[in-house]
Amino acid sequence: MHAASSHPHARAAIVSVGDELTLGQTLDTNSMWLSRRLTEMGIVPVEHVTVPDNLDAHARVLRDLAARSDLILCSGGLGPTADDLTRAALAQVMGDALVEDPIALAEVEAWFSSRGRHMNMLNRVQAQRPARAVIMPNLHGTAPGLFATLGERGRSCDVFCLPGPPRELMPMFEAQVAPRLRLPEGRTVRTRVLHSFGLGESELAHRLGSLMERGRMPLVGTTASGGVVSIRLRYEGHAPPAEAERALDDTERLVREAAAEYIFGRGEQRLPDVVLALLRSRGEVLGCVESCTGGGLGQLITDVPGSSVSFAGGLVTYSNELKTRLSGVPESLLAEGGPGAVSEETARAMALGGLSALKVQHCLAVTGIAGPDGARPGKPVGTVFVARASGDGEVDVRRFLMVGDRTSVRDWSCKAALAMLWQHLSGLPALKLIRQV
Amino acid sequence: MHAASSHPHARAAIVSVGDELTLGQTLDTNSMWLSRRLTEMGIVPVEHVTVPDNLDAHARVLRDLAARSDLILCSGGLGPTADDLTRAALAQVMGDALVEDPIALAEVEAWFSSRGRHMNMLNRVQAQRPARAVIMPNLHGTAPGLFATLGERGRSCDVFCLPGPPRELMPMFEAQVAPRLRLPEGRTVRTRVLHSFGLGESELAHRLGSLMERGRMPLVGTTASGGVVSIRLRYEGHAPPAEAERALDDTERLVREAAAEYIFGRGEQRLPDVVLALLRSRGEVLGCVESCTGGGLGQLITDVPGSSVSFAGGLVTYSNELKTRLSGVPESLLAEGGPGAVSEETARAMALGGLSALKVQHCLAVTGIAGPDGARPGKPVGTVFVARASGDGEVDVRRFLMVGDRTSVRDWSCKAALAMLWQHLSGLPALKLIRQV
Repeated sequence: MHAASSHPHARAAIVSVGDELTLGQTLDTNSMWLSRRLTEMGIVPVEHVTVPDNLDAHARVLRDLAARSDLILCSGGLGPTADDLTRAALAQVMGDALVEDPIALAEVEAWFSSRGRHMNMLNRVQAQRPARAVIMPNLHGTAPGLFATLGERGRSCDVFCLPGPPRELMPMFEAQVAPRLRLPEGRTVRTRVLHSFGLGESELAHRLGSLMERGRMPLVGTTASGGVVSIRLRYEGHAPPAEAERALDDTERLVREAAAEYIFGRGEQRLPDVVLALLRSRGEVLGCVESCTGGGLGQLITDVPGSSVSFAGGLVTYSNELKTRLSGVPESLLAEGGPGAVSEETARAMALGGLSALKVQHCLAVTGIAGPDGARPGKPVGTVFVARASGDGEVDVRRFLMVGDRTSVRDWSCKAALAMLWQHLSGLPALKLIRQV
Repeated sequence: MHAASSHPHARAAIVSVGDELTLGQTLDTNSMWLSRRLTEMGIVPVEHVTVPDNLDAHARVLRDLAARSDLILCSGGLGPTADDLTRAALAQVMGDALVEDPIALAEVEAWFSSRGRHMNMLNRVQAQRPARAVIMPNLHGTAPGLFATLGERGRSCDVFCLPGPPRELMPMFEAQVAPRLRLPEGRTVRTRVLHSFGLGESELAHRLGSLMERGRMPLVGTTASGGVVSIRLRYEGHAPPAEAERALDDTERLVREAAAEYIFGRGEQRLPDVVLALLRSRGEVLGCVESCTGGGLGQLITDVPGSSVSFAGGLVTYSNELKTRLSGVPESLLAEGGPGAVSEETARAMALGGLSALKVQHCLAVTGIAGPDGARPGKPVGTVFVARASGDGEVDVRRFLMVGDRTSVRDWSCKAALAMLWQHLSGLPALKLIRQV
C-alpha cells in the first residue's frame, strides 16, 4: 500500500468539496476547468463527485474513487476553518496522522508577512499534512495543496488536493500537478477548437452535415455559449502525433469550407482578441458608447491584456441626459413622440457622437431593453439596436431581438457589436447575424 | 422491492449525465439549481455525481446512490441519440424491460407536428420507459422525464430523470417533481446567509470564534468569492419552524455583533444592490470614471434591474488622452515626471472630474495596473487606486495591492470601490479594507 505508482494516469476522477456546492449556493466551475485540462493532455475524466463539508462522506468518496481511478483531483476544503476537512479526510483514508510541515508553515507565515498582515492561529492548521503526503506550495493564497498516493484493491491512485478558489487552483495545477502526471503512452489525443458567431447551433450543424457523424475520426462536435458556437475537433487513437495533426488539418479545412464567413477564431481566441488584432494591424483605435450594456462592452474588450493599444475608452450613457450631453444624441430623438432611447436613430447618433467625442476610427454603440422591465409597444424586452460608425461617418445599424434574461441579453449585445465590427474589419459582407431581425 | 415509498425525502443525491460534462466542455448549472430548490424545501442534497454517457457507469452510480439516499434527481441523457442512455440505465437498475409508452409517443409526435416538423425515427426512442416507470410530460422539448422507485438494501429511493436543457428541466421540476416530494416532517431545515466585504476569511473566522464550531446548531460557515466573504447559517433539527427561525435570529445577532461594520447584506443582496438601495433612499445618483476596469464597474452596477434610478452612467477613460479630455485630469499629472496615470492624484482628479462631468452626487474612480504587464518601479501589478468623490467635492482615495490575475484584480477593484461607497452611505467609519495598503 502507498507504493509510488508507475502506471499511467489513464482514468481520472474529480472531487469538489463544500456545503456551499452541495447546497447549491455556489456554482462549481473547477470541475469543468480541471476536466478540460486533463482531456487536453489525453487523460480521461470519468466521474465528478461533489461532497459536503463532512469528514465521513469525503473519506468514503476518496476511497471509492481510488478503487476505480488512476488519479483523483480534489478541490476545496483546504481553508483554515473548522469546516475545511480535506486534510483530515485524506489522513483518514491513508491511515496517517496529521503532522505540521515546517516548510509549509514558513510559507504560510511568509504569505502573511509579505502583505503586512499577521498570521493567526487558525491559519497554522493549513501547514498540516498527512504524514506521508507531500505539500504543494500555493503562490496565490494561504492554502498549500497536498499530494499523496492511495493504494486500494491492489492498485494505486494518486490524489492531488487543490485549494477551491480558481485563481489559486489553476496556477497550482499547472505548476505542481501537470508535471507529476504520467500521460498514457501509445495513445494519441489531439484537440482543436474553432469559434463561430452568427449562426445557431443547429444551422451550423446542418452546414457541417456528415462531418458531425459519431463514427468519424477526428470527431467533430459543437458547443454553444452566449452566441458563440464553438466547433470542437478531437482525434483519439493510435496514430503518431504528426499524423493526428494532419487528420485535424484536413478536418479543419472541411469545417472552414462549410462555414468560413462565420468562423472568427480558434483556440483561445475570443471575439475581442480577434477584433483588437485586426485594429492593431490597421493602426486604428476603437471606442464605444453604451446604454443597456452599462460598461460591459468596454469590460469585454479590456479583458484582453494590451487592449490599450487599440481601445481608447468609452461613454456609458445610461441616462437619457448623458446620451445627449456626452454623445450628442439630439434631445428631439429622446423627447415624447420621438423614436426614443431604444431606436435605430438613437443608436446611430450615439455611434456618430462617440466617433467624434472619443476621436476614434471606429465606434460601437448599444442601446436596448435588457429587462425584466422596460418593454414598450412594438419593443419587447430583448430589443437591442447596435450601431457601428467608422472613419468619416459610415454607419451600420442593426436591430436584434435577444432572448433570455437580463444577463443574457446584455452579454449577447456586446458580442453582436463585436461581430459587426469583425465583419467590417475582415472585409466580409454584413451577413445577418443570429437574433438579428 | 419497488414498493411505493412513504418515508420522507430527507437526503437527496443529484446526478448529471453527459460526456460534455465529464470532459469539461460544458458547465453543469443544473446541479446547483436543483440543490438550491431542494434546500429551500428542507431536503438536504448530500452529493452530486456527474457520469459520462456510459451505461455501466450510469447504472452503478444510480445503484450506489439509491443505497444511501431517499431521492435521486438525474438530469440529461434523455435525448434521441445513441449516446442518450438514461432510459437504459434506469431499466437495468430496475431489472425492467424498456417498453414504448403510447401517451408519450403521442406527445412527442404532437410536439413536432405543432411546430410543423416531422418526427423522425430517432425521436421515437424518447417514448420508451422502463416497464414500471412513469413518464413525465415535457412541455418545452421532446424528451419526456421518468419517475421510478428503486429498492435497495431494504429501503426505497425515488428517482426522477429530467432532461438536460435548463429551460426544460426547471419547469418539469416545478410541475412534475416538486408535487411528488415528501418533505421531511418533524425535521426543520432553515438557512440564512449574510455577506461581508473587507475582512479576509480567516480574519472573519477569528472574529466569529466559537460560533463556527462544528457541533454548534445553527451551524455557521464561511465561503469567500472575489473578496466577498459570505457567512452561512443553517439550522437542521427537530424544532418547529418558528423556533428554528428564532435560533437563526439569535445566531445572526451574534454574527452581526462580531463583524457588524463589514456585513453589507443578506440573502440575494450583493454590493451593487445594497449601494443602489442606499442611493435611492437618499435620492442621490452615482456615476463612475474607469480606467483599468474598462467599464466593469458600470456593468456590475447595471446588472441590477432598475439601476437607472440611481446610476447615471460613466466615463471609460482607458487612454490618458481621454482621462484629460473627458474627466479633466490635468495633463501635468500624466506627463513625464508627474505621478502618472496610476496614482492617488490621478484617481482623485478622475473622481472629481466625473462628479462635475456627469452631474452626479457621488462618483467612483478606479485606476490601476491589472497586469500581466504594466508594472512600474514601486507600483507592482495589482496596484490600484480607488477614489470616491461626493457632494461638494469631499474625496476618499485609497491604495490597494490586489492579488491574482487580470480578471481577479479588475473584479476586486470594482467591489472595493462599491465597498468604499457603502461605508460612506452607511455612515460607517472608513475602515481599512482587505488588500488596502
